[in-house]
Amino acid sequence: MTEESAQRKGISRRGLFGAAGAAVATGVAGYAAHSVLAGEESQAADTTGPVEFHGEHQAGIITPVQDRLHFAAFDVTTTKRAELVSLLKEWSAAAALLTAGRDIGQYGAVNGPGEAPPEDTGEAVGLPPARLTLTIGFGPSLFDKRFGLASKRPQALVDLPHFIADDLDPNRSGGDIAVQACSDDPQVAVHAIRNLARIGFGRVAVRYSQLGFGRTASTSRAQTTPRNLFGFKDGTNNLKLEDTAKLEQQLWVQPDDGPDWMVGGSYLVSRRIRMNIEIWDRTSLGEQESIIGRGKGTGAPLGKADEFDAIDFEAKNSDGDLKVAKEAHIRLAHPSFNNGAELLRRGYNFVDGSDGLGRLDAGLFFLAYQRDPRKQFIPVQNQLARSDVLNEYIVHVGSGIFACPGGVTAGSYWGEKLFA
Amino acid sequence: MTEESAQRKGISRRGLFGAAGAAVATGVAGYAAHSVLAGEESQAADTTGPVEFHGEHQAGIITPVQDRLHFAAFDVTTTKRAELVSLLKEWSAAAALLTAGRDIGQYGAVNGPGEAPPEDTGEAVGLPPARLTLTIGFGPSLFDKRFGLASKRPQALVDLPHFIADDLDPNRSGGDIAVQACSDDPQVAVHAIRNLARIGFGRVAVRYSQLGFGRTASTSRAQTTPRNLFGFKDGTNNLKLEDTAKLEQQLWVQPDDGPDWMVGGSYLVSRRIRMNIEIWDRTSLGEQESIIGRGKGTGAPLGKADEFDAIDFEAKNSDGDLKVAKEAHIRLAHPSFNNGAELLRRGYNFVDGSDGLGRLDAGLFFLAYQRDPRKQFIPVQNQLARSDVLNEYIVHVGSGIFACPGGVTAGSYWGEKLFA
Repeated sequence: MTEESAQRKGISRRGLFGAAGAAVATGVAGYAAHSVLAGEESQAADTTGPVEFHGEHQAGIITPVQDRLHFAAFDVTTTKRAELVSLLKEWSAAAALLTAGRDIGQYGAVNGPGEAPPEDTGEAVGLPPARLTLTIGFGPSLFDKRFGLASKRPQALVDLPHFIADDLDPNRSGGDIAVQACSDDPQVAVHAIRNLARIGFGRVAVRYSQLGFGRTASTSRAQTTPRNLFGFKDGTNNLKLEDTAKLEQQLWVQPDDGPDWMVGGSYLVSRRIRMNIEIWDRTSLGEQESIIGRGKGTGAPLGKADEFDAIDFEAKNSDGDLKVAKEAHIRLAHPSFNNGAELLRRGYNFVDGSDGLGRLDAGLFFLAYQRDPRKQFIPVQNQLARSDVLNEYIVHVGSGIFACPGGVTAGSYWGEKLFA
Repeated sequence: MTEESAQRKGISRRGLFGAAGAAVATGVAGYAAHSVLAGEESQAADTTGPVEFHGEHQAGIITPVQDRLHFAAFDVTTTKRAELVSLLKEWSAAAALLTAGRDIGQYGAVNGPGEAPPEDTGEAVGLPPARLTLTIGFGPSLFDKRFGLASKRPQALVDLPHFIADDLDPNRSGGDIAVQACSDDPQVAVHAIRNLARIGFGRVAVRYSQLGFGRTASTSRAQTTPRNLFGFKDGTNNLKLEDTAKLEQQLWVQPDDGPDWMVGGSYLVSRRIRMNIEIWDRTSLGEQESIIGRGKGTGAPLGKADEFDAIDFEAKNSDGDLKVAKEAHIRLAHPSFNNGAELLRRGYNFVDGSDGLGRLDAGLFFLAYQRDPRKQFIPVQNQLARSDVLNEYIVHVGSGIFACPGGVTAGSYWGEKLFA
């Protein structure tokens, strides 16, 4: 199915159900007005409109972070390259429709009324696009012998090393393909992943999936800095979409980096970080602030008044101690102590029920995009794993690394250049 | 800690952090204007303002259903009645603050700057009240020998019988105390449960908890009917807050029902219902509609045009078959086939990652309030468990029943009459 035929076939949620149209129309009219918004910045305040799927880069990376996440890692179960390519074409066509707030196909009427299963599962009917983005990445395991892709594996797509204190669950790690669905409505994000999984039946299977809420970083200066489950503002110095020159240096794969199919793309590192929030909650405010290096309320670097004040790493208290401690998180993670390495983070808080020991299974699903993990995530995380006092309160329990190709142009599909 | 002293001690999120106030002020101003809204109906459209905690009935029952859920069941770990009573007093004071959009206490400054842990965990700072409600219920196990409450156990608080095809996980069932947190912001609901759990440390432990999204029923005619993960509108004929006479018959415990401490309260049945969505998604549209008894798009009863048209259970197709099949879900669950029994449902969709077999762990966290489960949930569920064709696609994996007392008046606390 080409993208064009899917566009023809796809029916807007408004028109899908005939008699249901009236009830749905208000919502649709509500977002139709937003679709003319041009700039990424202006999308930050709008929580219902669509985000364009096609473009130079994949959406869902610098897009102002939406409030909800459904992340899924898939194992490819077919061994046939042609079936994998077909799947990526079908997924891309579906993604273009889903992100536009459309359903992915006819509703069982193809072979006469009611005789076929609905092509769309229906739970997003009546809901606006809600800034849905779908972003794909390919894991190292996809480049094994199955699909003839070994020679196409980017050098930067390394297997992540073991970091001190990693306690990874293999069932929450790795994956041949990752799809990151972000939206301001969880039902829209869940609907998208579910329908992609359904399209993939017999070719891929969900390896693990993760829901998240309350974004833990901003990717635009138009967004306020949110708080993580430690209660601290997170992502104050994150790379932002307005930092256009820096994005070329730090985020997007450049022509000289290679391989060709990754130009305009980025590498995603995902980490499921369990927080021992019960222990954290018994730690004094002073200790918490010293560990992070920021005031809990203001988010300001210690010794400063405002969240966005520059950090003074040399400043000392009257008793001669550094205001921002030697092993404070913001020092260890700062570009000036990491050869200038920066990340574009867009992680989410999660609570996945409780852990059977009376504690919430809660934490941060860390997502970071970068030009080269060998120079960015890996050295930064090595330093944090060695020295960060925060390690007493967190444990990394899941991990993934994925090569996210450049953007999809109309008529193309996810990974077309990889399979060319 | 009395409720009044907590009110004095509690600091609004606006003023909590001094220098942070400016960044937060816009949001606070945004909801301050809503606090004068009087009617429950008018709250449906507002997603940021507060819902009054005190009143004749507990909030969070007929309150127009918020979009997000964090439900927690606790085991009481202390064996001392006095400690349990103290906890309920502290919880009630905290709940009054949390639902007003305030934090639950000072921020570590009590014993000098930074020497104590913050009394509030902080991740809701800057967020509006977001219509948070906190609703408490007491499970049958609380009425064992530990706390001298055996004689206070309501006759209606029966142990639920085993229903055909139940496959209950004991770790997701039961509980001495349940707290239902509903809000239009998941971070606000999570923050509330987390802080209640923290207050309860050493006295209660989380037995299980459940996040939900995309409410699966409306409790006000001002709300549109949402869709469950089968893609169908759910709760069209739910009891609504506007049905004031019916609420007295079906929802609220009446003086003659007894015991006294339950008057104005209601009984909550919770069921974690796993949906086999992958199987459902391969079922034809006609079969899906026949199983439910409604059109998938319109939500109208089969043979009718509009969602709210009266169901005609006698109507037949031209070939003589009933339009609404003999075992359609809406027939088996309808009051006219259940001695008039109705429920006030306010359940939520859930996706808790995947199940290790390539499938999403998804479904419906069913929550239903009622005057007497012996006459309402139990007979209805017995009929459904026996005959509902939907059982091929669902399995009940968790279960709870809780006695939710009447509302808390200012100066009182959750369950005061129970312990009097």
